Amino acid sequence: MSLSAEIIAVGTEILLGEITNTDAVTVARALSALGINAYYQTVVGDNPDRLYDVIMTAKERADIVITTGGLGPTFDDLTKQVAARAFGRKLVLSEQELARIEEYFAARGKKMTENNKAQAYLPEGCTVFENDWGTAPGCAIEQNGKILIMLPGPPRECEPMVEHRMVPYLKKLSDAHFASHSVRIYGMGESEVESKIKSFAETMENPTVAPYAKDGEVMLRVCGRAKTEDEAEKLTVPVIEKIKEIIGDAVYGVDVPSLHEAAFEILKEKKLTLATAESCTGGLVSKLITDIPGSSEVFFGGVCAYTNEMKMKLLGIDSELLEKYGAVSRECAEALSLAACEKFGTDAGIGVTGYADPTTGDDKNPGGTVYVSVTLRGVTASRKIYQPMSRALAKSRAAQEAFDILRREAKKL
Amino acid sequence: MSLSAEIIAVGTEILLGEITNTDAVTVARALSALGINAYYQTVVGDNPDRLYDVIMTAKERADIVITTGGLGPTFDDLTKQVAARAFGRKLVLSEQELARIEEYFAARGKKMTENNKAQAYLPEGCTVFENDWGTAPGCAIEQNGKILIMLPGPPRECEPMVEHRMVPYLKKLSDAHFASHSVRIYGMGESEVESKIKSFAETMENPTVAPYAKDGEVMLRVCGRAKTEDEAEKLTVPVIEKIKEIIGDAVYGVDVPSLHEAAFEILKEKKLTLATAESCTGGLVSKLITDIPGSSEVFFGGVCAYTNEMKMKLLGIDSELLEKYGAVSRECAEALSLAACEKFGTDAGIGVTGYADPTTGDDKNPGGTVYVSVTLRGVTASRKIYQPMSRALAKSRAAQEAFDILRREAKKL
Repeated sequence: MSLSAEIIAVGTEILLGEITNTDAVTVARALSALGINAYYQTVVGDNPDRLYDVIMTAKERADIVITTGGLGPTFDDLTKQVAARAFGRKLVLSEQELARIEEYFAARGKKMTENNKAQAYLPEGCTVFENDWGTAPGCAIEQNGKILIMLPGPPRECEPMVEHRMVPYLKKLSDAHFASHSVRIYGMGESEVESKIKSFAETMENPTVAPYAKDGEVMLRVCGRAKTEDEAEKLTVPVIEKIKEIIGDAVYGVDVPSLHEAAFEILKEKKLTLATAESCTGGLVSKLITDIPGSSEVFFGGVCAYTNEMKMKLLGIDSELLEKYGAVSRECAEALSLAACEKFGTDAGIGVTGYADPTTGDDKNPGGTVYVSVTLRGVTASRKIYQPMSRALAKSRAAQEAFDILRREAKKL
Repeated sequence: MSLSAEIIAVGTEILLGEITNTDAVTVARALSALGINAYYQTVVGDNPDRLYDVIMTAKERADIVITTGGLGPTFDDLTKQVAARAFGRKLVLSEQELARIEEYFAARGKKMTENNKAQAYLPEGCTVFENDWGTAPGCAIEQNGKILIMLPGPPRECEPMVEHRMVPYLKKLSDAHFASHSVRIYGMGESEVESKIKSFAETMENPTVAPYAKDGEVMLRVCGRAKTEDEAEKLTVPVIEKIKEIIGDAVYGVDVPSLHEAAFEILKEKKLTLATAESCTGGLVSKLITDIPGSSEVFFGGVCAYTNEMKMKLLGIDSELLEKYGAVSRECAEALSLAACEKFGTDAGIGVTGYADPTTGDDKNPGGTVYVSVTLRGVTASRKIYQPMSRALAKSRAAQEAFDILRREAKKL
């Protein structure tokens, strides 16, 4: 039988919508990879009574209760007190953790305030999750067959603590083995993907196939379960092949984190170099590429030319072209991708120009119209996009389209 | 007495950590602005029994139950069936909604699949929330003094539906009035801010002052409650003034959404123009600026020079400087910000160079070291940052520091 877990995020700021509960994502992913089922997530405010109730409910229905947040030094951080009470433990001062916190502040030349000390109090007899990324230690308690895990709230502390402390701790407890793969699709809507795979996927129980739509993309998650990792893995192989066959080349990769990373991998593999010339995306395309570790192997740089003058001056775009077709035109996008290659001396260039903001635009090109072009070894391919929802969406969609053209063109070489 | 609400997100993909529950943020913010209390958020999978239980629990403890997700066309979308049952309503076909969905597909030249039709079934007697941004309509039911609201899951549909359908619907129901303001702070840690305001804020009940740490920044939320909006507003004014006095110029704004928008506003107000020359941030700085509507008033463009050759060729950085000090140096950052001004003919220039990736670096500058420089009307100010946690964090911190220098320098003019 596999274990179940429940995630409780503590923080009024989440209930007020002031921060996004990304810790839940971090913890949920880790649990999923361990084959631990999570049926519920809860968010509760910095209120001791409600927090106590939520922990008791979770303890009732799950084997493992995981809290995030409320371990900080401020007066509304109360997870440890409440959770320790729910599990019948006292808080005691850990001299070792106090020393670590003191050291943390000393190393940074920062002043340690009195309330930082409170962070060194932990439930008696717990397993300490040392915090190498901040001040508040996490911990785990085992009591009557139930487990309580407490993690700090700030994502930059929670993330590494999940990876380096919680996962190794939980690995000892799980038995069933899982193999999970994501088939990533761009350029086909969720309904269409669903219709195509319905007859094939609906009745399947192991592996399971589940579609998710996200940021203009569709992902099919294939998850196999077996007694060993190898067996679980083997179950997924023919299913993934079948999906690729049904969906065709809209599948841009399996287990790749994003379209731009898929494009990057092809460029890297084929030793192709890249530069960008962006207008309305304002640096988003180059930002995405440079988010990838090792991007300097492929990426030489980019120009963001937000004004016509800069398009001419920095990228040598022809003033006649701009006059004849306008800066928002397929012709300009194609000139930009070509200019990127030429200016930076790269194999590939991405050019983007358009009206990202839905409140802008002209008669020919309403707001949300963007032209995207890719030049690869002298051959140019371009697309027109119309995404009049929001500035952010038009920018992001334009970047996706650029990377989609790029990965398709680069694959042909 | 003010109303309470509870948000339920439906989707196994959230439990698996495959997507982030951003809808909860959207809904929570809207509720908070309306003065509706939200004490819990829950996430539950695409499982009818567990979803039913969660809805019944929420109905018990809140006046308003709001679901997001599970209205899509695929076989695991079951919110409507389950929620309608929990509120004792049948689902009936809305001919009007069916026509809208048909129209939606026709307008986009896309094929409507059979399962899209299911989206036109709605609880009998509900208020329809028409979906102008996608296919699945939302709705509201009132039953025995309790309200059920169902919203679509995709953020690009949920967001506008909250703003244009749910908020107007709920406005009729609320009575207490709130005024809420965010004092934004950069360059001071949460503990330090907390220590400074503790004696002043801890005992305060109306307005309340609550600190939140987020993305390297601290925010103090000041929230007043009164019989009228004006009265609530008046309560917050002296408290905000007092905070500014205590914290000093680390306060970069009140109710501004971000540091880069605060910097942008000052530039715009003083009619100063901006360009960027980025290395390790790879376009992030220009991306952030161009995320702001109307950024073209201030921003001319930027160069992302990822290689030394491009720094020389495109920005005219001196090869001797690069040889003597290295590309990762204060000298190079300062040359970059100056070059940005010169190349683009702007008042202000931002230059960034460093090792964003913690796995890179050299003897003098370990991974995570970034130099940030701002030139404003010929005067240059720069900072060295050391943020060895992750590539993303180093990039984001560098951009923040750049905007912090910029807003401080621009304020002096």
